Formats: sequence, C-alpha cells, structure tokens
Amino acid sequence: MRAIVAHAAKDIRIEETGVPALGPEDIRVRIAFGGICGSDLHYYNHGGFGAVRLREPMILGHEIAGVVEAVGADCRRVKIGDRVAVSPNVPCNRCRYCLEGLQNQCLDVRFYGSAMRFPHVQGAFRESLVCRESQAHPVPGSLTLQEATMAEPLAVALHATRRAGSLMGRRVLVSGCGPIGALTIVAARRAGAAEIVATDIADGVLGFASRLGADRVINVAETPETLTAFGADKGYFDAVFEASGAAPALRTGIEVIRPRGVIMQLGLGGDMTIPINQVTFKEIELRGTFRFHEEFALALEFMGKGLIDVKPLITATKPLDEARDAFELANDRSQSMKVQIAF
Amino acid sequence: MRAIVAHAAKDIRIEETGVPALGPEDIRVRIAFGGICGSDLHYYNHGGFGAVRLREPMILGHEIAGVVEAVGADCRRVKIGDRVAVSPNVPCNRCRYCLEGLQNQCLDVRFYGSAMRFPHVQGAFRESLVCRESQAHPVPGSLTLQEATMAEPLAVALHATRRAGSLMGRRVLVSGCGPIGALTIVAARRAGAAEIVATDIADGVLGFASRLGADRVINVAETPETLTAFGADKGYFDAVFEASGAAPALRTGIEVIRPRGVIMQLGLGGDMTIPINQVTFKEIELRGTFRFHEEFALALEFMGKGLIDVKPLITATKPLDEARDAFELANDRSQSMKVQIAF
Amino acid sequence: MRAIVAHAAKDIRIEETGVPALGPEDIRVRIAFGGICGSDLHYYNHGGFGAVRLREPMILGHEIAGVVEAVGADCRRVKIGDRVAVSPNVPCNRCRYCLEGLQNQCLDVRFYGSAMRFPHVQGAFRESLVCRESQAHPVPGSLTLQEATMAEPLAVALHATRRAGSLMGRRVLVSGCGPIGALTIVAARRAGAAEIVATDIADGVLGFASRLGADRVINVAETPETLTAFGADKGYFDAVFEASGAAPALRTGIEVIRPRGVIMQLGLGGDMTIPINQVTFKEIELRGTFRFHEEFALALEFMGKGLIDVKPLITATKPLDEARDAFELANDRSQSMKVQIAF
Amino acid sequence: MRAIVAHAAKDIRIEETGVPALGPEDIRVRIAFGGICGSDLHYYNHGGFGAVRLREPMILGHEIAGVVEAVGADCRRVKIGDRVAVSPNVPCNRCRYCLEGLQNQCLDVRFYGSAMRFPHVQGAFRESLVCRESQAHPVPGSLTLQEATMAEPLAVALHATRRAGSLMGRRVLVSGCGPIGALTIVAARRAGAAEIVATDIADGVLGFASRLGADRVINVAETPETLTAFGADKGYFDAVFEASGAAPALRTGIEVIRPRGVIMQLGLGGDMTIPINQVTFKEIELRGTFRFHEEFALALEFMGKGLIDVKPLITATKPLDEARDAFELANDRSQSMKVQIAF
Repeated sequence: MRAIVAHAAKDIRIEETGVPALGPEDIRVRIAFGGICGSDLHYYNHGGFGAVRLREPMILGHEIAGVVEAVGADCRRVKIGDRVAVSPNVPCNRCRYCLEGLQNQCLDVRFYGSAMRFPHVQGAFRESLVCRESQAHPVPGSLTLQEATMAEPLAVALHATRRAGSLMGRRVLVSGCGPIGALTIVAARRAGAAEIVATDIADGVLGFASRLGADRVINVAETPETLTAFGADKGYFDAVFEASGAAPALRTGIEVIRPRGVIMQLGLGGDMTIPINQVTFKEIELRGTFRFHEEFALALEFMGKGLIDVKPLITATKPLDEARDAFELANDRSQSMKVQIAF
Repeated sequence: MRAIVAHAAKDIRIEETGVPALGPEDIRVRIAFGGICGSDLHYYNHGGFGAVRLREPMILGHEIAGVVEAVGADCRRVKIGDRVAVSPNVPCNRCRYCLEGLQNQCLDVRFYGSAMRFPHVQGAFRESLVCRESQAHPVPGSLTLQEATMAEPLAVALHATRRAGSLMGRRVLVSGCGPIGALTIVAARRAGAAEIVATDIADGVLGFASRLGADRVINVAETPETLTAFGADKGYFDAVFEASGAAPALRTGIEVIRPRGVIMQLGLGGDMTIPINQVTFKEIELRGTFRFHEEFALALEFMGKGLIDVKPLITATKPLDEARDAFELANDRSQSMKVQIAF
Repeated sequence: MRAIVAHAAKDIRIEETGVPALGPEDIRVRIAFGGICGSDLHYYNHGGFGAVRLREPMILGHEIAGVVEAVGADCRRVKIGDRVAVSPNVPCNRCRYCLEGLQNQCLDVRFYGSAMRFPHVQGAFRESLVCRESQAHPVPGSLTLQEATMAEPLAVALHATRRAGSLMGRRVLVSGCGPIGALTIVAARRAGAAEIVATDIADGVLGFASRLGADRVINVAETPETLTAFGADKGYFDAVFEASGAAPALRTGIEVIRPRGVIMQLGLGGDMTIPINQVTFKEIELRGTFRFHEEFALALEFMGKGLIDVKPLITATKPLDEARDAFELANDRSQSMKVQIAF
Repeated sequence: MRAIVAHAAKDIRIEETGVPALGPEDIRVRIAFGGICGSDLHYYNHGGFGAVRLREPMILGHEIAGVVEAVGADCRRVKIGDRVAVSPNVPCNRCRYCLEGLQNQCLDVRFYGSAMRFPHVQGAFRESLVCRESQAHPVPGSLTLQEATMAEPLAVALHATRRAGSLMGRRVLVSGCGPIGALTIVAARRAGAAEIVATDIADGVLGFASRLGADRVINVAETPETLTAFGADKGYFDAVFEASGAAPALRTGIEVIRPRGVIMQLGLGGDMTIPINQVTFKEIELRGTFRFHEEFALALEFMGKGLIDVKPLITATKPLDEARDAFELANDRSQSMKVQIAF
C-alpha cells in the first residue's frame, strides 16, 4: 500500500507502507480521494508551522473519502461496499473536555496528519486506511466521493459559523478567500447572513468568492479605502471571519466591526500586534474557532440535501503518482482553490 | 378615500373616510395591496380574540405596500413616486423598553388595526395612508408590490427564528402551517436549519409546506404516531415553532423536543394546559415571540436578494370591492394561504 | 446493616439489609446523616408522584454524608477515614447527552432512591453505603457532616440559578419557600441578585426566607395584591424561580415578570393551565431545571469557604430509630425546613 | 466657584470658573467629594493617553457626589437637600446604538472630563456642578458621600463582570489590582465567583486584593511560575479580567485560561502583541468592556444594601487646596488605592 510521506520541507515521497491489523471495532477504507489542506501545504512548504515541526516522517492528509473494503467483527453500522467520508478527528470521550461536550478540545485527541504530538499522528493520504467505525460517515447518494472529501474543510467552516452565534440577518465580512474563507462564505450564507463582503489580495480567489455568493468583493491590496470606509460610525459589520492569518486583516477587521461585534479568528498567523484599546472601547469579541466535531456529519447532510454546493471549489484532481505536482498546484492561488489527489 | 372598517363579528364595511393632514415628518402612501392576517380574520370572524375586543369601529389591516404620493416638509429620505412597504409598528423610542432596544415591547406602541388599546389604533386597509417617513421602507426593484406586502408577516417569522437562537444545523419542527407557520419554514431554512418537519391537520397547507422546503410533512390528525415516534430517547427536535395556537400541538411539541430544546410559541390560543413536569425534567425552554422590529427591513432585503421567495404563498388577490369575499376566502384553509386585497 | 425502606404510602420500615460487595473502584461509607427531601416525602405520603409510583420496596434517601470505612483496590483519591459527601447521581458518561456535557439528562442515569426506572434505584438511607469513588467528594474541614449533607439540595438550587443565566444585579422572585425555594434565595443572592422577593402561603417558611436574605416576603394567601402590583408596566422581575409547583404561583409569576424575563420551573406539579398568550406577548421564557451535575462539588466549595451558609435551614435531627417521626416532622411546614436523620 | 483644570502634563491649576445657568430639567449640585481616576492621572501625568490628548484646558473629574442646592422648573424627582451621586455619562438616547440599548456606545455621548471629543467635555471636579436631573441618583441613607463617590468606578467593574456572562461558580483571574482591578475582585465575588486569584507586580495592592476577598494573590514580578503553572491541561481559569493594560499580563492570561474561557479586557494599553494562534486553538474569547450604563444605579443599590463594601478602598481624602498633592499621592501605588478630593 502506498502513502504520501513528508520527510521535510519540499521533501514528500510516495512510499510503501504496511496495512495495520483490523480490530473488532475498526473498518478498512479504500481511499478514493484526498484533499490538500493548508496545513498539508505548511508541512510541504516549511516542514511545519509555528512551534509545530516535523520531527519524524509523517503521512500527510486528513480530508478523505472512499469505499469500505473490510469491517471488524463488532461493526454494526457500516458494511463492505459502503461509500464513506472519514472524520480525521478521534477524541478520547473520557477527558474533562470531552465530558463537557467539547470534543474538539480533547486533551488526548488524535487528528490525522498532525505533528502537534509526538510520535506524530500519521495521516490518511494512503491507498487503504484502517480507522474506527465511528469515524466513518455514510455518503448520501446524491454526492460524489469528491464532494464527500470536502466534508472535512466544510466542517471547519460550519464550526466557525456556529461559534459566531446566530448570523441570521447579520452583515458579515470574510477576510481571506482561500478554501476555508471561501467555505465560510458558503456557510455564513447558509446560516442566514444578509450581506457578505469578502476581501483578499488576489483577484483570482475573489472571483471564486463572488461566484459562491459574496454580495461584494474587495481587493484590499488595490483599494483598501473601500474597506476602511466601513469603519464610519464605529463600524458596520456584525461579524468578521478572519481567515487569512494576516495581521493587517485582523487590524482592519477591528476597525470596521461595529460595537459588540464578533471577530472569529480562523486563520493561523502566529503572534499579531492588535489595537487592543479598540477592542476595549467598542467592546468587541475576538473569538477563536478550531476544527469541528458534530459538524462533520452536518457537512455531509447539507451537501446531500443540496443546501450547500462545494463543487465549484474543487479546481483540480491529480493521480497519486503526481502528488508533488498536486501540492505545487495547490500552492498557486492564481488558479487553485481545492486540489484533490485520486488514490 | 375608502377603507375597510370592522364594526363587529362578520360586519365589515367599505366606508368613506377622511384623509388626515400631512405633518412635516409624514408621508402619504397610495396603498396598492393589503394582506389579510390572522388577527384581521379574528376581528372579522369573532370581533376580537381573548380579552382583545372591538369596542368601536376600526379600520383593519397592517400588511401593506404602495406608492408615495406626498411627502412632508422635513422628509429627506423618501420621495414622491417611491415604492414603499410600510411598517405598521410605531414604537415611542422613549420608554424604558425602547431604550433597552426592545421596541416590540414598547409601553406606548401604536400598531395598525389593533384593538389592544382604546381608542383603537386604526388600520391601513384604505386607499391612502398618512404615516411617518420612518415607517416607510423602499421596495427593491426586483420585487413586486405584492411581494413587498409580505414584508410584515415575514418579519414576524424572522423575529421568531432569531429569538430561537442559532438554528444552524438544527432539527426543527413547525406545528401549524398557516401563513405564519409557512413563513417560519422558509425563515428557519434561511437560518440554516438542517431538517424541517412540518405538521398540520389539513393536507392543503401541508402541500404548501412541502413546496416551501419542509423535509417532511405529517398530518397529525391522520397519523399522530408518526410525530410522537420522535419522542424516543427524550426527544428529537432542537427547536419547535408552535404556530397553531392549539393546545395539543404544544403538548406534543413538549413530548418530541429534546432536553434543553427551545419551543417558540407564536400561535395565540388563550389558556393552555401543559405537562409542566416534562418542561422541568427535560429542562425545556418555552419562549414567546411577538411581532418584530428591525426584521421588517430585513424581510425586504432577503426577498430583494432572492434569498427568500414568498410568491408561492400569495394564493389570491381580490379588488377592494370584494373585500368581504376576500375575507371569506382567507378563512378557507383548503385553498388559501395568503389572500391580498388590491386597493 | 439497617436501612429505611418504603413499601407504600405511610408505610416505611427500618429493615436489615445486606452490604453489597466492594468493587475495585468502589468505596464503603459509614453514613452519618441523611436529609429528608421533598421526593422522599412524596414516596412516604403518597407512594410516588405523578406517573412515578413505588412498584417494589425501595430504600429512600439521596442527601447523605459520612466517613469512608473501606476502599476498593483501584481507588486512588479517597482514603479510609475521609469525611465525604456522596452524590446520589451516577450518569453513564457514554450516552449522547453525557457526551454533550448534559450529564443530568443522561439516558441511563442511576439516581438514589428513585422509582423512575424499574427495578427502582435503591436509596442511601442506610447505615453503610457502597458507592463509586467518583461519587465521593471530600468535606472541607470547616464544615460539619450535617452541613455537608446539604450539598445535594444546595446543588439543585445552584443548578437552577446557573440555568437562569447571569443574575448579577437582577430582580428576582422566588415563589415557594420550602427547602429548595429557601436554598434558591441563598443561591440567587450568591449569584448577585440585587433584589429578592419571596412568596409563600405559610408565615413560618417566610420567616426563614427573611432570615436567609430575602429583601421582602409576601404571604400571597393573605395579601395577593401586594404581589400582583408588581405587574404594572408589563412586569417587574427579571427572573422568577417557581419552587412551589402550584399552578397559581406560575400564573402570577407570568403576570409579574417583565418582558423577556426568565421563569425557572423547579417545582413539580403535574399539568398546569397557563395563560400562554402572555408568554407570547411578553416574550417570556419558561425554562425547566432538573437536578444538577458539577454543582455538587460547587456546593461543598461555597459552604466550605463560608460563601453560603445553610446551617439556619437544618431545623431538626432525629436518630434512625425515630425515622417515622422524622418524616412526620418534615411534613409540618409550620416548624420544619430541613429534617435530617442521624445514622 | 473653583475647579481643577488640566492645562498640560503636570500642569493642573485650581481656577475660578463661572456657574452655568440652570435649565428647566437641570439641577445644581454642591460637590462634596471627587475621586481621582486612572484617566485623570493620565491627563495629569502625560496630558492624555494614546491618541486622546489635551487640546485645550479641561476641568478634570467624573467620580462625584454631593448635595442638591437648586433644581430646575421641570424637575420632579430630585429635591433641594437631596444627597446624590452624579453619573458622568450622558448618552443621546437617539442614535442607533442608544435605541439598541447600548448607551455606553452612544455616537454622541458626553462623558465628563474627557478629551475624546473636541471641544472637550468639561469635568466635574468643581465646587458646584449643573447637570441634568436624570444624571442624579439618590444616595441610600446607609452610605456616606465618600462611598457614594465610588459608584462610578464600581459601575465600571460591575459592567465588566456582567459582560463576562454568568460567573456563578466560576474560577476567575484578575490581573492588575489598581482601583478597577480591586473593584473587579469585589464585583466578581458578588457575582458568584467560586475562586478568585489576583496578580500584580506590587505587594502593596496585592494586600488590598487579599483583604477584599481574593482567595489567592500572586506577585508575578517575583514568582511568575506560580501563575503559569495554571496553564496545565490547556488552562485553569474560566474567566480572566485583564485590568493592568500590560501586554505580558494579557499574554499570560491567554496561557492560563481554559478552552472557551473569556478574557475581559478592561486595562487600556495601546497596541499589544498577542499569541493569536492560542486564541484560535483554545477557542478563547477576548472581549472588551467599556464604561457602564445602568450599572451606576446598581452600584449604589449594592453598596446601600451592604452587599458590596468599598470603604477599604478609599485610602486618602485631601482638601481641594491640596489637589496637586492628591494627584501625586494617587500616583503612588505603594500606599494608595483610591484618593478622593473634598470640595
């Protein structure tokens, strides 16, 4: 069985790896597609991000869907031949956060393809994956496996919109229109946002943002004053989703959000210098949002019912043999939104 | 100028009435359409509801849109010829509730066509209406005036969904599929509900519910057990919108809602006997929702952007001369959803 | 080992019963005191309440504290000789509600001395109790075991106040001043209530309410108009804690609560007829509250730090031999608040 | 009539100034005491803070109480001879934020002794003050005018605790124990905090913190590791009140707060560099809090009922002639908490 293994920055290899044994509550999934995420790109480009660094070879990948090819003795729900999307998130369900219902804050979580703990949790970019039955979610008949592979990043966006409180009738700014920002546009619209303004510094992704339903897009590299004009009368937006991880975007978000508004921080950007007095004066809430839990199943349900359409976001699919090309293509924001690998 | 005046149960008359003088902050609107609401029907059928009774002749009506035909000296925003929907709700903006932002709880509110206070507040089913400029909201070019007339009942449904907290990804039951229930289905979907089950005792309105996007409809007069099956494991729904005003509907809602779920009570039904122990055991929230405030403008925005479509709900339009027929038609749930009068 | 066993209404017996074996995660506690709760009285007086009926002999009791006399092989936290209060609540920590952090809604909960499931869960009014180590909470050195026995009913009141949202600076009505109502007065004050009005129909318990810190007490059997005067301008109270289970109290609560106020329903009273239109018009929230979870440890912490004092509530302590007298005394509201049994 | 006028950094003068005319809704108050606030000290020490600078002479002061000596023709509530605390905050009650109930975010607010707008709003450190009747709150008979003068800073702390959501049973960290931090300790305890840890870099103010009820105090200049140990298992505190305005305090607050915890930012400190990834990973909320509105009356009520005691915080009172000494004394954290001026 082959897998995509990251050894260091710019050093990913397709390697043979063994197939783990199947426990009684496990299933084995023949992976069909894997989507390249921003964190995969961080490992590929830089060998990690912030304090999280590759310290041993690690199989990448956590956006996956496929077909069940074997089931353990105690599996009751999933059958061989089922099409499933696999959640990369395995909380312990025993620590204090899990027992408070905060599984995404689990103290002992295992998340595929992450170097946050050591030994690293090996990822899912492999031809065959053994996982727990509880991780597998059936793919509605109306969806392709490529769309189902989008359940994971969509779940991130759904979690972010739910963490923001009700968006029904709200005015929303999304800064940064990469895949997560783009999915946040879709999710915020689904959640009832009345107006969505999207910003980026690249026209390419702003075109996607428009097609996905943003009411207005602004290239803040070209016309920053168009955005800052929203700062009149203490600010315009009820909610800001900061998905760029760029300090200037957060700073401008603080400027254009209205008093008591909520800024959801999705983008990862290390230390940032922010005008904290404005947070105090306007009584803003800056709120983090991280991964997801029950939103994985919800993502499949929304897509399956046609309430959310992610197809426009899948810009390319490459075979496993061309994995390196796929990563380079994913790096190119002028033409790529989500790049998937076909296993 | 002619108006529709209620004198007593089953006694409405088309009468000539004078046009009030135009103050400096007032406008005069040539009314195009007026929608018949459940409260109008209560006055027509019964002379009132509960303790609220007709004590003098009262012009009915509070769902209206038209064209501006005169503006007062101090008006700045609205111009002659503008198409406007008129909010029937005039809070004082000075009482303690208004200054807390709860204008729909204003201690001195004037709401068109309501016998809650005496002298009654005369309504808006008249050929020409003088109102404050601040009540008039511009109708987006993409909307007909008939659709704009739906802003008021849609605002009621939007207010109810917002009062319920975030519905993003939630499982929702709507009991009672008259106009308000039907609009609540649309509003809940707009707010991100993942699943919507609608119930009624009449197949006619359930057909509307399906076309408006309910995932499933149940005729609880025919197959009540289909609904009560949702009571397993303490209940299924995250939120219930009780729009029928019927005690059995509320009782069943309490049975099928999950622990900590929210039941929004929209329907008016006088005293009801409820299993209060179940409210306690399951820690349910039973929450009232009444009228609207900023949701009136939001209703127009949602319709104008194509995010909510109310056209399927407008089942008939009758000329002013046939007002009595219009009221009788509105009474007939087998064929009517919203009946409008053309002035 | 002796225990207090309820066989039917007015038929409780002190009987010999065996001591269960000690599992590796269990401890055995020599019970010192047991407090008689309203539900114990329901079994004693009526053989149950509502649909919950005695169907086999059941040991009563769930308010208990004592001294550890044996520990299982795997116990790490508790040692022989420790003074502990024992939580009567054992959630499964595996069902969907537990994994959402709603352990008090557990689908498979075992709660001492409850006939809600069959076979009934035997209670803790016994000389020696085997329970899980995780149920045992150390008693701070500043507390007597009698005070520690109050952790359970105090936890109920703490849970109710937390379910009400922030009470900081709020105006609070408590209707019904039995032990739970009285503890709610104390808890609401601890939570920052600015004003607390307490009502009952018995002067005896109202005296307790005053001593516990109620700003004002009203005997609604004698001067109901003193309370209903609070209904002016749509109502006065931000929060109502309905601890009587009497329908008129809930009805009046609805009358005197302000718009958007919260009524917490603690009292158990079967079906009640309520003016549902007022709930709708004033957009009231009627919210259930049931038992507790993490509030048990919190109760001990508050008492241990002197932040809550329950001593005035313990009105009598009777030896086990006089258990029947203790139950009769607890029935007498003119002189009793909380009656405890010394084992 | 004499007043304390700031001309520039370290240049305050006692000057004669005229008494404004009394409008029909105005009252004139003989000021008894004025408390020196942190912002007064900023003007005194630095001529302003951040972008807010003195651009003309400005009377300082906004913490005041006194005795009514004249009332306008339309005043109904306040009488000559009444003891009153005067709120320095005058919202317009007409802008969009006021009509949402967010008077502390008023677009046209006038706040005494503030250089935020130009011409500056003159302050209240003067022998006689003309203000609106609505600003005057009666002082309960149980309070001295010195205590009543504390209503303003206490209102700031009460607003902060209410903005934090329910603190009932929560673990709280207060960083920075100047007057606002110290009052936040008192307010958080009043709001039901189960545990309060207070930090500062000066032992003097930490002694106050202990006497005011902090369960534990930590000098983070001496033993920072005592605080950072609370960062285990993702963090300990449910809520952090950052009242120092020092970037390292905010950074450590982010480290020791638990997932989904709330950091309230009260301290003003200009731009700060924060580990934004930790905000994201732990889904922290960083929330501003600014001034107060209805909490001014609440502060008087809490003090009047003996539910909050601020007397230990008033460390010195100086006559008007020694105003400069009073400001220097207020600068000295080793001996001062709140310094008041007697007019």
